[in-house]
Amino acid sequence: MINRENGVACYQQLSEILIKQIEKGIFKPGSQLATEIELSKRYRLNRHTVRQAIERLENEGFVYKIKGKGTFVASDKINYKVSKRTSFTTSILDVGLNPDARLLESYEIAAGRELSKRLNIQFSDRIIVLEIVRFVNKMPFCHTTSFLSKAKFPELRSLINGSFSLVAVLKKHYGVDAVRKSSTFEVSTPETSDMDILMISQKVPILLVKSISKGQDGEVVEYCVTKFRRDMCSIIVDFNGEGR
Amino acid sequence: MINRENGVACYQQLSEILIKQIEKGIFKPGSQLATEIELSKRYRLNRHTVRQAIERLENEGFVYKIKGKGTFVASDKINYKVSKRTSFTTSILDVGLNPDARLLESYEIAAGRELSKRLNIQFSDRIIVLEIVRFVNKMPFCHTTSFLSKAKFPELRSLINGSFSLVAVLKKHYGVDAVRKSSTFEVSTPETSDMDILMISQKVPILLVKSISKGQDGEVVEYCVTKFRRDMCSIIVDFNGEGR
Repeated sequence: MINRENGVACYQQLSEILIKQIEKGIFKPGSQLATEIELSKRYRLNRHTVRQAIERLENEGFVYKIKGKGTFVASDKINYKVSKRTSFTTSILDVGLNPDARLLESYEIAAGRELSKRLNIQFSDRIIVLEIVRFVNKMPFCHTTSFLSKAKFPELRSLINGSFSLVAVLKKHYGVDAVRKSSTFEVSTPETSDMDILMISQKVPILLVKSISKGQDGEVVEYCVTKFRRDMCSIIVDFNGEGR
Repeated sequence: MINRENGVACYQQLSEILIKQIEKGIFKPGSQLATEIELSKRYRLNRHTVRQAIERLENEGFVYKIKGKGTFVASDKINYKVSKRTSFTTSILDVGLNPDARLLESYEIAAGRELSKRLNIQFSDRIIVLEIVRFVNKMPFCHTTSFLSKAKFPELRSLINGSFSLVAVLKKHYGVDAVRKSSTFEVSTPETSDMDILMISQKVPILLVKSISKGQDGEVVEYCVTKFRRDMCSIIVDFNGEGR
């Protein structure tokens, strides 16, 4: 219950009570949270305080609102750790979940202005593009578009099939040990194709991460753009972790 | 103009032409982009291709749409670099811009369940909360709520005034050399108070970053939650950079 004497703001106490209940499964993912009126009666709080508590839950990603319908409990977020040397596969295995990656399609394009800069190659050089969907426990987790130099990895497209790890393929066939150099984080809106792939509705923004990785010789190996479902993940950057 | 022979998809060429025009200032921040019809006439492309190009610009944050009004050019994004040892002040100075931070308010609370875990202190310990707005070239850039142990930094609230750097204050008065340990990235929706502080409309999602920093003794110095305007920044994590 709410303690008015302990110096913790009432809305903060209520949000912690609700978080605990969500974590315990009293409110299940996808189910409706108690309404403002119910909560204000049950905890003897005014509706402004209840609203503040729910706003905080929404902000932290525990619940989401559907206009005219109410407030619903979000799915558990996956804590996806990235550091210099963690790949998707190792990071998801580390939290005890089941990673998988599937190639949606692959094709080749000319580098053009922007991509030639990113990969440090010529404007007219060929690029291999891999459209990859990554899954966690069979749920679509992110959609990655990877760009690699065709000259460096000529046979790459034919080396990928079934369930795969790109890091492992690069290591096995080209002896390349790819290490994350930088990642850029932005908020974005999904394209129509992403909505299908990630099974989301257009209204929901996504987390867009653009990463560069380099090989042991310091040359760029891969530039990739990854779109993450907002409700499914927290991306945790570990500034010390070397991974593995 | 569009070259149909060079192997670069037409929508990709068009989006690069438009990016160049935005970068050159032909379309100014806040002004309306040419309409789909205008662009499809000018570049002899079908509207589907034009739409794809604009979708890509929107996705990359160069433009934003206002329903029923059209597509507008976004402000330049600031490349905000974070690494183990970069502070807001040094990072913004590094890109030749003018950083500033102002304390909105400060107060004390009991730690409670969640914050006591983050700061590795007791449930009933007191916490100093600093509400900070950071500016770049006098524009509000982010809103940070910082949590620090009152026992460790007893006089902190009275040490901050005017324009300040929290890292510098901690160093000067407590000899603490704070280093970023981890940052968690999520997409969120602004609270009403953030909308005023950051001068944004509720519709626009924000980038929420929660960071932990530690001192030279390995103890947690600060837990902070920062809300960034989506249209103003790209956050670039440098996995090698030690900064200063």
